[in-house]
Amino acid sequence: MSDYMEGKSRWWGWGYLDRRFDVENRENIMPFMRENLGMALDRDRFTDPGLEEIDIPAPRLEDEALRELRELCGPENVSTDKFQRVSHSMGKSYRDLLRMRMRRVDRPVDAVVWPREEEEIVSILRMGEARNLEIIPFGGGSSVTGGVEPLAKDRDGALSLDLARLNRVLRVEATSQTAAIQAGALGPEIEEQLNEQGYTLGHFPESFDHSTLGGWIATRASGRQSTGYGDIEDMVLALRMVTPRGVVDTRRVPNTASGPSVLQFCIGSEGILGVITEATMRIRPMPEVFDYRGLIFRNFAAGVSAIREMMQQGMVPTCVRLSDRTETALVGSFRSTTGNKWKKKGEEAALKVLARRGFSFDDGAFMVMGLEGGREETEYMRAGILRLCRGLGGLHLGTGPGRQWYESRHDTAYFREQLMNRGVLVDTIETATTWDNLLHLYGEVRSALRAALEEGGGRSMVGCHVSHAYREGASLYYTLFAPMTEEGGEEEQWERVKRAASEAIVENGGTISHHHGVGYEHSPWMRREVGEISLEAIRAVKKVMDPACILNPGKLIPAR
Amino acid sequence: MSDYMEGKSRWWGWGYLDRRFDVENRENIMPFMRENLGMALDRDRFTDPGLEEIDIPAPRLEDEALRELRELCGPENVSTDKFQRVSHSMGKSYRDLLRMRMRRVDRPVDAVVWPREEEEIVSILRMGEARNLEIIPFGGGSSVTGGVEPLAKDRDGALSLDLARLNRVLRVEATSQTAAIQAGALGPEIEEQLNEQGYTLGHFPESFDHSTLGGWIATRASGRQSTGYGDIEDMVLALRMVTPRGVVDTRRVPNTASGPSVLQFCIGSEGILGVITEATMRIRPMPEVFDYRGLIFRNFAAGVSAIREMMQQGMVPTCVRLSDRTETALVGSFRSTTGNKWKKKGEEAALKVLARRGFSFDDGAFMVMGLEGGREETEYMRAGILRLCRGLGGLHLGTGPGRQWYESRHDTAYFREQLMNRGVLVDTIETATTWDNLLHLYGEVRSALRAALEEGGGRSMVGCHVSHAYREGASLYYTLFAPMTEEGGEEEQWERVKRAASEAIVENGGTISHHHGVGYEHSPWMRREVGEISLEAIRAVKKVMDPACILNPGKLIPAR
Repeated sequence: MSDYMEGKSRWWGWGYLDRRFDVENRENIMPFMRENLGMALDRDRFTDPGLEEIDIPAPRLEDEALRELRELCGPENVSTDKFQRVSHSMGKSYRDLLRMRMRRVDRPVDAVVWPREEEEIVSILRMGEARNLEIIPFGGGSSVTGGVEPLAKDRDGALSLDLARLNRVLRVEATSQTAAIQAGALGPEIEEQLNEQGYTLGHFPESFDHSTLGGWIATRASGRQSTGYGDIEDMVLALRMVTPRGVVDTRRVPNTASGPSVLQFCIGSEGILGVITEATMRIRPMPEVFDYRGLIFRNFAAGVSAIREMMQQGMVPTCVRLSDRTETALVGSFRSTTGNKWKKKGEEAALKVLARRGFSFDDGAFMVMGLEGGREETEYMRAGILRLCRGLGGLHLGTGPGRQWYESRHDTAYFREQLMNRGVLVDTIETATTWDNLLHLYGEVRSALRAALEEGGGRSMVGCHVSHAYREGASLYYTLFAPMTEEGGEEEQWERVKRAASEAIVENGGTISHHHGVGYEHSPWMRREVGEISLEAIRAVKKVMDPACILNPGKLIPAR
Repeated sequence: MSDYMEGKSRWWGWGYLDRRFDVENRENIMPFMRENLGMALDRDRFTDPGLEEIDIPAPRLEDEALRELRELCGPENVSTDKFQRVSHSMGKSYRDLLRMRMRRVDRPVDAVVWPREEEEIVSILRMGEARNLEIIPFGGGSSVTGGVEPLAKDRDGALSLDLARLNRVLRVEATSQTAAIQAGALGPEIEEQLNEQGYTLGHFPESFDHSTLGGWIATRASGRQSTGYGDIEDMVLALRMVTPRGVVDTRRVPNTASGPSVLQFCIGSEGILGVITEATMRIRPMPEVFDYRGLIFRNFAAGVSAIREMMQQGMVPTCVRLSDRTETALVGSFRSTTGNKWKKKGEEAALKVLARRGFSFDDGAFMVMGLEGGREETEYMRAGILRLCRGLGGLHLGTGPGRQWYESRHDTAYFREQLMNRGVLVDTIETATTWDNLLHLYGEVRSALRAALEEGGGRSMVGCHVSHAYREGASLYYTLFAPMTEEGGEEEQWERVKRAASEAIVENGGTISHHHGVGYEHSPWMRREVGEISLEAIRAVKKVMDPACILNPGKLIPAR
């Protein structure tokens, strides 16, 4: 059984069971939310569900199939247990969390299997073909696009293939700074094993604790430090992927002109072509310096210019994030208000200094800028970046706000749990575009979101930040809040909002996803973004690798 | 007609007609070659061919087809002229140059067409399907893998589709530092148009003068400054490719998680999927500083360590090249020995200083290290790199040898023309691997080459350099020389050598090509490198985009 999930994580929501968002020490946050959403937030609309409240049909898988699986992987590595089936049937999207709160698991998987080695996966896929199954590769289950939910209607069973047992760093090659890592390793498992030998992968998405290498590769993920370390597709030197037709094993070379990049076609294939089992990753020595700072700009546009200039002048931070006015105010209200009295007094004094200089968290753009690396190199970059920001009107706030962001960087995902129970629609939507289009896209998507959120006449709050930056553009990451609509209409309300945002993104030159992937939530817009010929190309490759269409049918592209 | 080729370039060999390798001012080079190859080099085995000496059959294309083409693209943009047919039927590989010297054009194209806009290409492909033609996209014709030679046996004509008319920079987007460029633009045409606006693409392959953007993208090329500016696949933000089933138009975004990368599948497709017509490229401001230097190391391994350290410490030069012992000696013998007496005396004094410190061009490893960019950034990098190299036993030779390399960087390709006429087999072979495997692969390929070159009992010379460097590995680029075998056996001799090298590469963890591409010369080894499933995937995508298989059949993968 998956050691990681059972008894440690919220199967119905986000994160570790023993961790919740600390509202008590932040006096300003709930008043801020109340004011902006125009709701009292004083009663529970939902409560966390108990497993016994969830109703799912008996597993469809025949006894013979289960026996075969148990023989293959060991009886302890096959389960039709309710907890396992429920926790493997959905990801962590707003829709998923909503349905869990409604005690609904619309499409449960029938069993979960934890193969111990690649050879067992080969056999499982063979069995899947023979028994007309739907097989869904499962990493950490943190998908926000519906990536792990079974969708097929014409199968004799849905099997979740959990890679949790393949969680080892197999080899570290110090000379080349690469490591062969098994795909089922979770973020912390990878870093722990690499750190021991003095290395880091440098991939730290918000889902870090609850997502795996294979999942990152399958969804073309980006960590929060991607500006410096690169996106996952830049980190993969080579991979192994088990398909129903055999193993794709790309060559371990730094670069090649040996035809079209099959490697870059496997990256982002979301489990529809094969099961990624192992990858050779580019790794880095542990940074000597770890330096996060806060800055504030008078407005979003000024901060955007600063990021663009950094990137184009080759002053590349490891991490850079810029919040718009709304999100900056939200960040301000997140500040811890209890604890050390002197620290509190110091912060208040700092805010006064800010105000005298004409900056404010109520009407500014907050930037976090992080540098990780060698001493000399980070010093050089820091000096250049701070000089550049000053020149563009930015005010350096020092390491305090940077550290604060770093320490609380996982909090918002936990906050969502509480807000949803109080009846707040909370979701995130992300895209990317080139610098010349960034502010235009920013405005269009924001307007579309607000219009959709306020359709019923209520209020809404839409914050945004630039996170992953490139020489020629950046990503935009929206966080949205609004009162949930009347009971029973919540899913439809969300669909309306999602549709409005997705339309605005695709119509205005954005990509439907910068790093969340496609799953089934984004596939109608992915189709428009990539066009019919490219879609046919993906379909044709699927037909080569997975001719019986047993792997994650219905994701990315409509199946058969 | 192609303005560029006619009357300006050698159709039977490399380069501009008015340019040749200057042997006269280099007293040492011919004695060096004579000694190392054990041949007199005093008589012509071949002479440059005249067009009238080449025999090709009448074009197979029906009058009606030609009429249709002329109506489509204008009569001046269609030709069955002998010069055009001959010069569009082969690239610039050793095999190509050999056959030209033997007055052999084995498989001539039947006509050449120069479309003026994308719409015309759509029509040409439609016509190609209707008339059962073979259509070969043609850029600068510099392929060294057989990429532009017609191969199909079952067609009613072979048409070379020359993109020379699509040679404009369409838009420069200063904010995002991107430019939309037509695929038929040659290196100098691109740089001229970008430089006018203060930008550079930064892609400078050896073939720069005679290759196009579309060709670079189709073959996953790398320029000599790729270590700093990136390989072509890093520079393409988006592209347009006309396929017989419609236009693939990838989204202009800095990054996306919208499924498998169709973009990275089109890059490297070598004209078998479609005709690349336009790409949005990442561009850079013209460098403020342009600084090339020479260094010398006691041996190849020490220099290799220095490059690895630079890359892994983030001290990334724009260009870095390291020659092994043989190539260093060759570089030494290339030195101009006439001209300014004082300059000459200065050089001789410098060589004496070298010798006193225990370094020599006869027994060392010469490095060129180039930096291009902003003043501050290049100063920072230079200081770091030189410090690092000193620490690893390298001796800094100053800017003189760097400038000399830069100025003569196109010379060797011209030298080949003269050597081949004197009966020398001259070719280049390239690969890439990770640092941990680099010296092993270096030795294995070198041994295989020497054994194959010396099979008849003669002598040979095999030099090698590291050119394109990455954090986790680098490319190896071999230049090989040997006396040609007995008359009539030259092509077979070369095939034997090529086969031996390719086997050694694939057997020892290299890629069959780092930047030359596949064409038909590399396809047997590409097949082994990528494996059958990946090959089937490419074949399946071709079937989607080019179901009648009219586009460059026989390249990359065996056709139908």
